[in-house]
Amino acid sequence: MSGHLSPQGLRQTIRSGEHRGNTSGYAPGYVQCNIVILPADWANDFLRFCQLNPKPCPLIATSAAPGDATLPPLGDIDIRSDVPSYRVFRDGEMTEELPDITGLWRDDLVTFALGCSFSFEEALLADGLEVRNVTAGVNVPMYRTNIDCTPAGPFSGKMVVSMRPFQAADAIRAVQICTRFPSVHGAPVHLGDPGLIGVADLDSPDYGDAVSVERDELPVFWACGVTPQVALEAARPPFAITHSPGCMLVTDLRNSRLAVL
Amino acid sequence: MSGHLSPQGLRQTIRSGEHRGNTSGYAPGYVQCNIVILPADWANDFLRFCQLNPKPCPLIATSAAPGDATLPPLGDIDIRSDVPSYRVFRDGEMTEELPDITGLWRDDLVTFALGCSFSFEEALLADGLEVRNVTAGVNVPMYRTNIDCTPAGPFSGKMVVSMRPFQAADAIRAVQICTRFPSVHGAPVHLGDPGLIGVADLDSPDYGDAVSVERDELPVFWACGVTPQVALEAARPPFAITHSPGCMLVTDLRNSRLAVL
Repeated sequence: MSGHLSPQGLRQTIRSGEHRGNTSGYAPGYVQCNIVILPADWANDFLRFCQLNPKPCPLIATSAAPGDATLPPLGDIDIRSDVPSYRVFRDGEMTEELPDITGLWRDDLVTFALGCSFSFEEALLADGLEVRNVTAGVNVPMYRTNIDCTPAGPFSGKMVVSMRPFQAADAIRAVQICTRFPSVHGAPVHLGDPGLIGVADLDSPDYGDAVSVERDELPVFWACGVTPQVALEAARPPFAITHSPGCMLVTDLRNSRLAVL
Repeated sequence: MSGHLSPQGLRQTIRSGEHRGNTSGYAPGYVQCNIVILPADWANDFLRFCQLNPKPCPLIATSAAPGDATLPPLGDIDIRSDVPSYRVFRDGEMTEELPDITGLWRDDLVTFALGCSFSFEEALLADGLEVRNVTAGVNVPMYRTNIDCTPAGPFSGKMVVSMRPFQAADAIRAVQICTRFPSVHGAPVHLGDPGLIGVADLDSPDYGDAVSVERDELPVFWACGVTPQVALEAARPPFAITHSPGCMLVTDLRNSRLAVL
């Protein structure tokens, strides 16, 4: 029912509490973002972590100042009510899942909006490629790797990757397409033998759902937005808020505007 | 001794007969071309073959008119004397290998200059990638595949590919780099399992020399300039001239000017 809404219209239904679930497939053509909210005294290290690890943590926008709940570059947004579902963490443990965080807002909170794979999946589909998790109607499979992120202060950890299988010629095409979109994870980080990045079994993803990989296909791995969440949980800040998985901030920014060429 | 010469200076030593061998490594930074020379009544079909198969047959320049031995877009060139070694084919059979074809020139001959892998290998090396055949000091291994070229008149055949092994992250980088250079074969056409493109044994190339492929590497395959030569031999035109393998036309065009972005 909300599938045909503009980003502004969709956010209105989210703000009012009418739409509370997944945003996948909504407002096609527009950028959806992963959200991390931290106290200002943790924000600088997290910003550096994103800058040092741009493939898993592609920063699209941040608050203009601590306590400011708007994100003007992304639209007329109140970050306290415009995400369908939030997760609240205290000392690294999730304590609540809420449809609105207005009551928890503080003057020292800083918001980070990070790019998400929905944008590049749309570009792959528009080029005629088959994206297996979309075809199968499941969440993309995600895996913890043995690839170290570059640490920044308390933030560190291994890179998490998402996987989509392709025949070799389509994998090469996917590299070309995704290279145009560095702010939504960019080109893949690995393809072929999963063991080389510490992934033991493609059928047992650490997050999301397994998908089929045919004999003539290569698994292709992209840096994944779960990476900053894992780093966040390991850093155990006293207070943090994220979006709930799949329940993204829908922005007014067109996916095509993220293309660097 | 001629290694430090400009393209113009190098062509002078070739024209005079002083330099007769391989041009690999000479005039670094400048485009070297595969050469095919055909009678005008065969030229149109060959031109269409190149246009229909741009990855193995990337056309960089052609004669302005039949019988014209110059190629102004590529420098002050006399195609009859500026290639170190030529192969002459009659009815599809090689009959002579000559350092100069001035005596064989005819008013109906048309020259085709095609891009060559030396240009993209230079871009890969400049980016810090290891190119195995360069490290090993051997010719790149080349293989006949089961990939059909699009036929044009009498010209048809399977695509020939060259192979360079890379770790996955470098293979992805190689796709990005070579995508910028469509006129020197562009992005790879395949990577991973050689059997999927009809290559049975990497250790037994059809042309060139085998190179090592380590356990953590993927073989990466590029469309190869031997493809038009194979199509030419199969078409059996009554008369044709090509460069001898490795003895290319050295041009005044900088490799960097072939980059589309």
